[in-house]
Amino acid sequence: MNKDDIVDLEDVAGFKVRAVKAGIKASGKLDYGLILAEEPVSAGGVFTTSKVCAAPVKLCRRHLKATAGKVCALLVNAGNANACTGKEGEDNAKACAAKVAETFGCKTAETLICSTGVIGHQLNLPVMLGGIEKLAEAFSASAGKGEFAQAIMTTDLVKKTASAKIPELGAVISGVCKGSGMIAPNMATMLAFILTDAPVSPTVLQKTLGEIAEETFNRVTVDGDTSTNDTLLVFASGKAGGKIIDKTSGKRYAAFAEGLKAVCLSLAEQVAADGEGATKLVRVNVTGAKNDADAVLAARTVAQSPLVKTALFGNDPNWGRIIAALGRSGAKMGEEKTDIFLCGEAMFQQGKPCRFDAAALSEQMKAKQISLDVDLGMGKGKATVLTCDFSYDYVKINADYHT
Amino acid sequence: MNKDDIVDLEDVAGFKVRAVKAGIKASGKLDYGLILAEEPVSAGGVFTTSKVCAAPVKLCRRHLKATAGKVCALLVNAGNANACTGKEGEDNAKACAAKVAETFGCKTAETLICSTGVIGHQLNLPVMLGGIEKLAEAFSASAGKGEFAQAIMTTDLVKKTASAKIPELGAVISGVCKGSGMIAPNMATMLAFILTDAPVSPTVLQKTLGEIAEETFNRVTVDGDTSTNDTLLVFASGKAGGKIIDKTSGKRYAAFAEGLKAVCLSLAEQVAADGEGATKLVRVNVTGAKNDADAVLAARTVAQSPLVKTALFGNDPNWGRIIAALGRSGAKMGEEKTDIFLCGEAMFQQGKPCRFDAAALSEQMKAKQISLDVDLGMGKGKATVLTCDFSYDYVKINADYHT
Repeated sequence: MNKDDIVDLEDVAGFKVRAVKAGIKASGKLDYGLILAEEPVSAGGVFTTSKVCAAPVKLCRRHLKATAGKVCALLVNAGNANACTGKEGEDNAKACAAKVAETFGCKTAETLICSTGVIGHQLNLPVMLGGIEKLAEAFSASAGKGEFAQAIMTTDLVKKTASAKIPELGAVISGVCKGSGMIAPNMATMLAFILTDAPVSPTVLQKTLGEIAEETFNRVTVDGDTSTNDTLLVFASGKAGGKIIDKTSGKRYAAFAEGLKAVCLSLAEQVAADGEGATKLVRVNVTGAKNDADAVLAARTVAQSPLVKTALFGNDPNWGRIIAALGRSGAKMGEEKTDIFLCGEAMFQQGKPCRFDAAALSEQMKAKQISLDVDLGMGKGKATVLTCDFSYDYVKINADYHT
Repeated sequence: MNKDDIVDLEDVAGFKVRAVKAGIKASGKLDYGLILAEEPVSAGGVFTTSKVCAAPVKLCRRHLKATAGKVCALLVNAGNANACTGKEGEDNAKACAAKVAETFGCKTAETLICSTGVIGHQLNLPVMLGGIEKLAEAFSASAGKGEFAQAIMTTDLVKKTASAKIPELGAVISGVCKGSGMIAPNMATMLAFILTDAPVSPTVLQKTLGEIAEETFNRVTVDGDTSTNDTLLVFASGKAGGKIIDKTSGKRYAAFAEGLKAVCLSLAEQVAADGEGATKLVRVNVTGAKNDADAVLAARTVAQSPLVKTALFGNDPNWGRIIAALGRSGAKMGEEKTDIFLCGEAMFQQGKPCRFDAAALSEQMKAKQISLDVDLGMGKGKATVLTCDFSYDYVKINADYHT
């Protein structure tokens, strides 16, 4: 994408975006962000499928339902997930929403809350409420570009942003995302927020987001650990003008959905590439599966195998671990019909190992992005799952991460 | 167990056991073993459920069927798994079985073969056949105690043996096992061999072994990667005398099944404790599940979570990762009914975090064996899954393991 084509979250018409240092992160870094719509906007959201879901996830689901997908504000904090905190945690989330409503002149039900960080600690409510006042003060100055994306980071090493322009609608889409560990989204990734000025009804936004999440965020796995706080939200202000898109058909809808998918896919790839301890992004492409569900199963099993991921870290073209993962995946397959390619090089075809230059291939595997292609020879099912390698640093980050 | 109660594999009546250095392992260590029965004995086996299974696994299944579970010989090599080697691999396995039959005067169909090591390399047939001659020579000397258990090791750091005496039958059971990585057995573990002089019919042996495997070897996970070569075999010579056990009922059967289960459980625990890079054995006990299947699902998800396992390595009592794993496991649960204990200490009860001394608990977590207990409060289902922690060395072993 050309630099001119990048649209910052802060530049989407109809929204104001700010971030501050509220003192939630012990490091004193940016940790609190607010997205404020000028008036109620269409909103769609997909959330974790975990049976243990955090207080802010419960609040978002409730408020989206109560308002039929028309909201005004989103408050996000990093440094504390407000998960497994019981009634006190839910009351704290509600108190934050009420304070946002009072401070910015909207309704409590029009306010969404997202939290990310450590599980099982209560929020420090005075700090959270004081932070909302700091956010209000921040609106008197201009927005710091990229600060919101920075404020939602935890173990992330890089900011994750993506945007698209939709000439057909004269509209833009801009998204930010965070996530590095506890990443195996099932309905959504850790936290991702997307703004657009396109005119889209809440119903269409919700349906489209669900379908796109399935093929983007839900195809990422860092460690197979689905989070309690996974949330993907999209807000559409309609400020680009034009007739509201209220059907999932037609050229204008197609242009919007294409733009939204491009933004979601880019953010999903950035999450995989910045997986905890990752040295490379790995695209596991499965074709020739009996059906798409089998392709996802096969690709996900390979992408989640610790043995495959450590071999990728070691730049070791160990296809035996790949076929072992395929064999246990549950997908319909037989070794005599299976082809495996690594960085485009044939490793195993139709039941037989191929000859290849292991040293040269090991060099190729040192790239920042590599592909692992599997053809199961069973049918037309296909899927791509995004992952990363598994390094010493994954262990270091997660064995030394003190609460 | 008292030292006097230990029965070596080499001391079970009705069998001869030998191991040699055949030159299969590059290290020049013991790598080839043979178990020879004096006459055809009852045999039972359970094997990998992977759709990609190795040539020797196919041969074992075929021969056990052809002989209705009466076999004479078992040849085992380490250093090469003979998996994904196509027709040439199957022909090589057959040639080894034929050579054993010719050399030791039994039938080819009465000979079983097991292999473990790297996937995708053809066996060096002259080396394999020459090794069988070396094994024949070894029979002129006495058996080296423990050498067979040594010969089947790959990345294992310790030999794994277990035995039981069955006073009711005047019989003994002795088993050996290997396995450290690619361990998430589904029907069997990597390789385990058990000998007994108890009189048991092939049908009873097979049924009992299948049931016991389900609650012992199939409850171990090191990395979630099921192998292509998993094999558990038990041979019963009947040399202890007495009426043959041909029903799965009665006191004599119960005594045998109890002894066999004790041996299987001990071997399974040794596999988990010696998982690649492991610093400790972890017993994940789930009670109060809706049913036993749900208990296994919950326990296995916790035991396989990289985030839980790295926290255990770091001696970090991070119960948030445990409840997150339970939440995504698919088992019926709700945080408000869930209790979590680590090393006997309450972490989380009925939806609320408990107060505990994190520093003292971290000290306790440094033990060689620790327990993680979960009560889901949903019913009477229970299960234990055995695992280990996830350390830098797991990554080192698997990123640097060159084929």
